[in-house]
Amino acid sequence: MTLSQYIKDIRNPHLFLGIDGGQTKTLCILGNEEGKILSIGKGRGLEHILSPRGPEVAKLAFQEALSSCLFPYDPSSFEFECAFLGLTGVSRPDSEEAKSFTEVAKKIIKAKRIFVDSDPSIALAGAFFGKEGIIVIGGTGSVALGFDGTRYSRCGGFGYLFGDEGGGFQIALQAIKIALKYEDACHPPTLLWEKIIKNSSFSSIEEMVRSYYAGKIGRDQIALFTKSVKEAAEEGDRFAQEILLDAGRELAKLVDCVYRKLNFKGKIPTAGLGGVFNISLVKKSFEKNLDPSLYEIKEPEFPGVIGALIRAYQLAGIPLTSSLKENLKNSALKFIGVGLTHP
Amino acid sequence: MTLSQYIKDIRNPHLFLGIDGGQTKTLCILGNEEGKILSIGKGRGLEHILSPRGPEVAKLAFQEALSSCLFPYDPSSFEFECAFLGLTGVSRPDSEEAKSFTEVAKKIIKAKRIFVDSDPSIALAGAFFGKEGIIVIGGTGSVALGFDGTRYSRCGGFGYLFGDEGGGFQIALQAIKIALKYEDACHPPTLLWEKIIKNSSFSSIEEMVRSYYAGKIGRDQIALFTKSVKEAAEEGDRFAQEILLDAGRELAKLVDCVYRKLNFKGKIPTAGLGGVFNISLVKKSFEKNLDPSLYEIKEPEFPGVIGALIRAYQLAGIPLTSSLKENLKNSALKFIGVGLTHP
Repeated sequence: MTLSQYIKDIRNPHLFLGIDGGQTKTLCILGNEEGKILSIGKGRGLEHILSPRGPEVAKLAFQEALSSCLFPYDPSSFEFECAFLGLTGVSRPDSEEAKSFTEVAKKIIKAKRIFVDSDPSIALAGAFFGKEGIIVIGGTGSVALGFDGTRYSRCGGFGYLFGDEGGGFQIALQAIKIALKYEDACHPPTLLWEKIIKNSSFSSIEEMVRSYYAGKIGRDQIALFTKSVKEAAEEGDRFAQEILLDAGRELAKLVDCVYRKLNFKGKIPTAGLGGVFNISLVKKSFEKNLDPSLYEIKEPEFPGVIGALIRAYQLAGIPLTSSLKENLKNSALKFIGVGLTHP
Repeated sequence: MTLSQYIKDIRNPHLFLGIDGGQTKTLCILGNEEGKILSIGKGRGLEHILSPRGPEVAKLAFQEALSSCLFPYDPSSFEFECAFLGLTGVSRPDSEEAKSFTEVAKKIIKAKRIFVDSDPSIALAGAFFGKEGIIVIGGTGSVALGFDGTRYSRCGGFGYLFGDEGGGFQIALQAIKIALKYEDACHPPTLLWEKIIKNSSFSSIEEMVRSYYAGKIGRDQIALFTKSVKEAAEEGDRFAQEILLDAGRELAKLVDCVYRKLNFKGKIPTAGLGGVFNISLVKKSFEKNLDPSLYEIKEPEFPGVIGALIRAYQLAGIPLTSSLKENLKNSALKFIGVGLTHP
């Protein structure tokens, strides 16, 4: 069923909105009360909401995502039952960031209820269809989040200087430190040096380090050297391998921390999300470092944007039944490969 | 002999200048060709020479230090045999920084020869009276430097993100990471948490971390928590103790690296300089981690500013005899407790 058919078919459609707002794009998804996904839209990425341009960028991102989701209809002609937004830069639903985003969202989205939470919270809801479980995200940074059916609990997520263990930036940083020591004649030979040089525009690691301190390259560029670590590990470099094994261990520790904080008993579903889990050595080490009597390692069921829709259903009191889940799965399939608008 | 007596006594005094330019102050020392220190002066600290204000600040610092050293004489009426400057922000004598400092120095100091090198290089010359040896500096950062009688070789010194192992900033950072994990319920109890909170204006470590990322506190303030680690270790906290033992190990590794790079054979004089060596656990661990068949651990003989004077003698071809050394020692004693000008 397409959006236009659906709207024609019924007088008072009960519509729900899920939004996943990241740094590179903002996704928007529209579902009916049975879990049928009617449309998907996309807008620009967000900036930190407390930055000078933050509110204006958020407004544009929400407008673009919503308009592209509801095209060719006028967004202002829709009133949603519930809209749930999982947004980058939000740590908790009661934070200053969440309040500022909520203010902006209320100006763009007409809904009976609007909720804002962190992006990990929707990834978690997506991974386990709104049920209990723990996810750990290993992207550029790292953070773990768990839900016991009532409470959420987070571990890690303290950024590039004080945390982010197991994330891409720390993996790359460890590698650069070793390559720098090798260049400084303080470390045994390692493929890391040549892999980093190959993937960079620098002729020495020391030059790269100077460029970083001089503000010529940023942490995003540093994080890209995760690729060099992967390559060196695949070619048998034991220092590269140890960095990746250690990353898996650190990500598992974050999961253990959440398990303890939520006083979980017995076997809990767990998933590792984010780019670093595409590195097989990290994934293997992560799984090896989780006690099999405490964790059932699962692939995530839905992506974050559908997690946002699931949380919209939850908060509107729609029961998360197996038929709702089936509807989500089947209707989501339509949107594979058809671009980001309703088919 | 005072400066005025000396100048009255001889027609053509052969005078040598050593300058130690740091971030907080610039010291200047005047010696005759026999190693008699005639005067000491002090000026403001330096900024990085390649920063916009760098050259102007350096000019003022050199003027102040030289004027206070030669008071009440007119600095422009002196021509020195050789002036040696060991300056913060200089990595090597052939660096861009050294060239810029040399240009500024030539405008202020009338001398047959002017040389600029790093501040560790004069610390090393001071520690072993210009002879072979290795020093490691554990201040906020860390760096090791060795001299084999001909060549210099450095290890480490790559700053807060990529290096500085064993330095105060890394010690404090490790402690904050542990305290943050404890606060996040991901770490066993540790005194580090309460010691850091006690020595800060924050009610939580997470608040401190947020303040850092928001640019409200800097790395200098982070480094101050080395004090908290020392306190916690003294009261028996094993995590604090482990951080300090590890710092000593890392500083010893830097020394080993220099030893290898200079192809030293047999027993080489070694000294640990800087604030972290005032922490007994760091000092003990450093000494324990150095192979006693390779290193003779010594207290430094002279401070960096006298090291600069020693290098001025060296470069002017004055032999570093035991009588010169005795003269330096005896005449330096006069300046203890008499303020920073000639007595």
